[in-house]
Order: sequence, then C-alpha cells, then structure tokens
Amino acid sequence: MSAIEITPIDGGITAPGGFRAAGVACGIKASGKHDLTLVAAERPVPAAAVFTTNLAQAAPILVSRNRLAASGGHAAAIVVNSGCANACTGVDGMTHANAMADLTAATLGVDPSSVLVASTGVIGVKLDMAKVERGITMAAAALSPTGGGDAALGIMTTDPFPKEAAIEIVSAKGTFRVGGIAKGSGMIEPMMATMLGFVTTDAQVTPGLLQRALRAAVDDTFNAITVDGECSTNDCVFALASGASGVVLEATDLRLLVDALRGACEPLAIGIVRGGEGATKLITVNVGGARSDSDAKRTARAIANSPLVKTAIHGGDPNWGRLVAVAGRSGAAFSLDRAVVRIGPIELFSDGTPHDERAPEAAEYLKGHDIDVFVDLGTGGQGQSRIWTCDLSAEYVRINADYRT
Amino acid sequence: MSAIEITPIDGGITAPGGFRAAGVACGIKASGKHDLTLVAAERPVPAAAVFTTNLAQAAPILVSRNRLAASGGHAAAIVVNSGCANACTGVDGMTHANAMADLTAATLGVDPSSVLVASTGVIGVKLDMAKVERGITMAAAALSPTGGGDAALGIMTTDPFPKEAAIEIVSAKGTFRVGGIAKGSGMIEPMMATMLGFVTTDAQVTPGLLQRALRAAVDDTFNAITVDGECSTNDCVFALASGASGVVLEATDLRLLVDALRGACEPLAIGIVRGGEGATKLITVNVGGARSDSDAKRTARAIANSPLVKTAIHGGDPNWGRLVAVAGRSGAAFSLDRAVVRIGPIELFSDGTPHDERAPEAAEYLKGHDIDVFVDLGTGGQGQSRIWTCDLSAEYVRINADYRT
Repeated sequence: MSAIEITPIDGGITAPGGFRAAGVACGIKASGKHDLTLVAAERPVPAAAVFTTNLAQAAPILVSRNRLAASGGHAAAIVVNSGCANACTGVDGMTHANAMADLTAATLGVDPSSVLVASTGVIGVKLDMAKVERGITMAAAALSPTGGGDAALGIMTTDPFPKEAAIEIVSAKGTFRVGGIAKGSGMIEPMMATMLGFVTTDAQVTPGLLQRALRAAVDDTFNAITVDGECSTNDCVFALASGASGVVLEATDLRLLVDALRGACEPLAIGIVRGGEGATKLITVNVGGARSDSDAKRTARAIANSPLVKTAIHGGDPNWGRLVAVAGRSGAAFSLDRAVVRIGPIELFSDGTPHDERAPEAAEYLKGHDIDVFVDLGTGGQGQSRIWTCDLSAEYVRINADYRT
Repeated sequence: MSAIEITPIDGGITAPGGFRAAGVACGIKASGKHDLTLVAAERPVPAAAVFTTNLAQAAPILVSRNRLAASGGHAAAIVVNSGCANACTGVDGMTHANAMADLTAATLGVDPSSVLVASTGVIGVKLDMAKVERGITMAAAALSPTGGGDAALGIMTTDPFPKEAAIEIVSAKGTFRVGGIAKGSGMIEPMMATMLGFVTTDAQVTPGLLQRALRAAVDDTFNAITVDGECSTNDCVFALASGASGVVLEATDLRLLVDALRGACEPLAIGIVRGGEGATKLITVNVGGARSDSDAKRTARAIANSPLVKTAIHGGDPNWGRLVAVAGRSGAAFSLDRAVVRIGPIELFSDGTPHDERAPEAAEYLKGHDIDVFVDLGTGGQGQSRIWTCDLSAEYVRINADYRT
C-alpha cells in the first residue's frame, strides 16, 4: 500500500478538473427551493454506480442501470431532481425517467445512453415534466466549474444542511482530486425517501476499476451508516472519472483509488447521519473480538438500529446492559464471560461483571455530541466493524408521525 | 383435526385444577409493590420451557434449563422475582439463582431438580437473598387455588396492567383447562428486561408432548409479537400439566393441545403488546402472497419493527409507501407490479400504482386503536404470516431516554 497524503479542499463535486455543475429551482418543490441538479463532464467518461438493494425500485434506478449497461460504463452527465421520487408510479414513471435523461442528453448534445438520472422526494406522485424540462434548460445554461455548491442544494429534500466534500490526494502516481455531494438517508418527511451520493474524480481509470473501487468505498462509508434501518426505493451512488488530472490509475492502484474515494465519501456519509431526523448526537459503533468481520458488522448494525441503545444515548444514560443484550441477540458468536463494553474510553462491563462505579464518568462523557461505543464480542477472533448512526429523539417521532396532508 | 369449543373463564394460572399460586411483596422493589410469585403443583408434573435465544443469558435461565434436564421434564413449582433480573451478575448470579430454587424446594418439600426459576428487572444488580428468602416463605404460606391474580402482580415490572388469561376447552377427548400469566416484553424502564409467560393445564400429557405443543403455541403467540425488536437476557415461557382434569392427551392429540395452549397464550401475548412502552395502538401485521411462510414472517417482522411504519400509524398517516419500501428491503421475494397494500379494509396500492383517493378513508380508519395492515408480496405464493406490534410514540423515547439514576 502506497503512502498517500489527503488534504480537504473547497469546491465539492466540481473540485476535480473536467466537471461542471449547476443547481436550480424549477418549481417541483412548492417551497420554491432548489430542486434540480445537473453534473456534466466534457464528454462521456468512465462511470460507476451502486444501487439500492430494495426490491421496490424506483423508475430512475431502473433507467440509470439500463443506460450504464448500454454505454459500457460511461456517462457524460447526471441529472437529479428533488421534491418527487418518481417511485411507485407505474408505466408513466418509466416514461418520465427516460424522458428526463433524453431531454438532458438532447440539451447537452450527448448520446442518450450517457446520461444517468436520479430522483428523491415524495413516493407515489408523478413528475411534472413541464417543470423538469424547464429545470434541465435552466441548469444546462448555468453549468459552471464552480457550481458544486448549487448542485449540493438541488438534491436536498428536508436535509437540515447541504452535504459536500472534496479532497486532493498526493500519491506516488501523482496528484488528483475527488469531490462529491450527498443527501440524507432518513425518510425525513413522511413519504420522503432516499440517500443519494454523487462523486467525481479527475483521475483516469477504466469503468471496471472505478466500479470495483466505488463498491469498496461505499461499503465502508455510505453502507456503514444508518439513521433508522430503512433502505429506500431510490438510493444510489454514482461516480464519474474525467481523467483531467493526467494521473492514470491501473488495476494495481485499486487500494489507492479506494482510499481516495473513501476520503470524500466518509465525510459525506457522516454528514448524512449528523443531519438525520431529530438527531442530536453522532454515534460511532465499533465492534471487535468477533469471529469474522461479517459477524462484527451484524452486531454493529444491530446496535446502531436498536431503539433502546439510541434512546439511552439520547438521554445520556451509560446503559451498558442494552449493549450486552443487543450483542447477545445479534446472531453473531458472543461470549458473555469475555465480552467487554466501553462507552468512550470508559470500560463499564468485562469479565462477566459490571463496573457501575464508573457510570457517572460515562454519563459525563455522554453529554458530548460525538459518542463512541465499543463492544468486544469476547470470541477471541479478529473480526471488527464500524457503523455510524445518530440518537433517537422524540423529535424523530414527531417528524415521522405528522400526517402528510 | 377435532372440533373444539373454547370458552374464556376466570382464574388465570390457577384456573386449571391441581395448581396453587401466590404473589407477595418482600422488599426487592423499593416501591413496596408485589415482587415474588410462586406457582405450585401438588407433585412434580410434566413441564416444558422455551428460553430466550439471546446468547447473553441470565443466571435463572441457565439454572432452569439445567433443572428441567435433570428432572426429565418435570416440575413441582416455579419461583419468580421481579425488580432484579439477576443478569450479568457473574458467579454470584449463578449461586443466587440456584439458592432461590433450592430454598423453594426445601420450603415446599420437593426435590430441588423440580423447581424452575425466573427473574426480571434491573440488569447487572445482584439479588438480595435475605429478601428473596423472606418472599419464598411468605409466598409458600399464601399458596392458594385462587391465587392467580396475585401471581400475575408478582411478576410485573413497569407493565401498565397485569396480564392473565384462562380458557376451558370442550373436546372429543373431554373437558380441560389452560391458564396463564405474563409480563411485558418492552425493556420498559432503562435496564429493565424481559418477557415472561407461565402456563398451566390440567390435561394429562407427557413432558415430550407438552414441549412440542408449547414450542408450536409460542411460535404463533409470544414469538409473534414485537414492541421494539429487542430480545432480552431473561425471556422464558414455562408450562406445567397437572393431569387433574383426567383428560389424557396422546401424541395424536398434538393439534388439540397446541390449539388449547395457543388459546391462553394469544391473549397474554396481545396483552404484552397493548402494554408496550408508550403504546397507543395494537397493530396486526398480516403478510400474504409470499413464496414461503418464512419469507412472509421476515417481511411481517420487518414491518412490525420499522420505526417509519410505527410512527406513521401513531400519527394516523395512511402511508402505504413505507409499507412498500419495507417489504422491498425485507429480504423476501417481492414483485412491485403485483404487490397489494391494505390498511384495514382499504386498498391503497395495487398493480404498481397508488390509490391515494382512498387515503382520507384510511386516515379515518387509523383513528381507531386496533389497526390491521396487510401486504401481499405479489409472488403468487401461498406463504403468510401474522405479527402483532404497537405504534411508536414520543412517550417511548421519553421512557427510554430517562437516565436511570
């Protein structure tokens, strides 16, 4: 593994060379806020995608999957609307998603197979194509190499803040950049859906290598977060590689490319959790001492989705018993006698017995907003995993229980 | 399958002949409420048990499992304390759970292997054995064939109401009874745990038949409920069969015995859900059209544990999109084009398209307190499942976020 230096930079998804972007308001959202984003390369460039595993897939997911296959893993543009998920919309939904991509291709003068499309917002409502068409025209005219900030705004639904990140990577292979934007994973308003992530790089890579690296980077970042255990009909992450830096990465540079993509995806993913519904704390769940990494991941995910753990941390309660109980039921191999539980640096359970005398210290630690919890499953194995989540507040219930109309 | 007639009767766990019970307050709970329950047969009788699958098992679970094996599936008494789970208490915990069973055996003059023990309450705190000993003495003196009501009180932690049920079964094999008590599954107070169920019958059966029937009855009742997806360190269900009715059930009567046990377990299980933390509505989740029953169960459980579904129903929002999204991610085979979603009798999604014009009717239905939801997974298969759960309220968060001390 080569030594690399990673530095955060400004510019978001347009920080890497060879990309322009824009975000506009075209009336899909009644609020008048930004609701359409366009990201464009100078020509069809290598592209990769990771799609939701939900079997109820929205029309734009199906359309993007088809086009990426038809283009042999290349894309010249990504068009995204917020305010309407175009999911559960039947035959019309497919027609609209295809039209959205075709309109973008015609406007930019590129092959229709080289446009990817994504949507987020209300489920079960059809797109107003007149508004979408106007938005595409406006966004194409506004495309700019400094448009990353607007692009981050155009994909938001009720995210409390926009998510963008960019980094510069100095490596033995040369200096290149990765940038990206993302939007929230919580189904933040009733009937709202979707986690979206879009990543660009100016490294030169093949579509196959980009796909392998994106998959690996997403596993440790966007796929390592959870707000409420849900997985939407529209989730997707796209990556485009312009090659504008002149840095050529080969199959042997996979690890470098994964590290680079991860460097941009991780702050975006953590941003999604910080902006989770009703969230007041970022919780990093670490699990070790597992028989395998997949065992560790299973337990970490069970802890991160446990309403009892999430409410305890919300309330500042160093409730190690709930962590033990969730670890025990998670399906992973577990030894109560050798398990260890830490909240922050404070060990609260080990050798089968509690250390409740340390509870006040842990309660003090839990007053912070960045909380680490650690569970050693006590199997003596080397398996480990890390998952980010947020606390569960009464505000989450309030947000999600309000009737839509 | 024989035609049977089932009639609800009074008396709870002491309704079947051959059993006495008592519930007393011995000071384990600081509140002074009932905290120790004793159920006794006239001699060691066939007994069966279903234990938590959590790998972090409390001492009383381990002790009861050992004693049931040592007695060849017989028990003369069940002793239960509330207010302290005796879980995560190391070697002392095992000593105390064994002593609790031995003290009961000595007091009642039965073989130590014929006493089962259970505990519920705070995790990580040791039992005060002086209080337990006093409680056993008091309860043994108070044992009564009409003690079922007190027994239901003695196992409560913060359950909002006691749970007891009894039925009389008229069948071709004769007339016999089943009765039982239970306590809540939600970890209702911070560090509180456990779903407990205790069932008696005056049918005469072998331990093996009773075990098979209990397992089957529990699968459709206590194992078909969820409050928050958690599974505790102390969960268990015990069944005792006195034979006092003179009705002898053989292996060929398995179905009759399952139906009889289920008749008592179902209202107890539903009572646990109704008394769930912060619950305002009982939700019955039905899934059909699945490739298999296990696929249907997987989806029903995912829906029943979905915070988005539970908050929507809490808020009276007929949000079919969340049901579709959870079904799609549940891991079961699913066809969006052929799926059907109903809330109560109102069909809101079918043939891949919404019927939102019916949403106001569904919103009216959701004002009730007993809510049915139905999802057909659209595979054309015959698999089906039913799970009971409750809604998710801000009160749940408030209850679980309060600091223990």
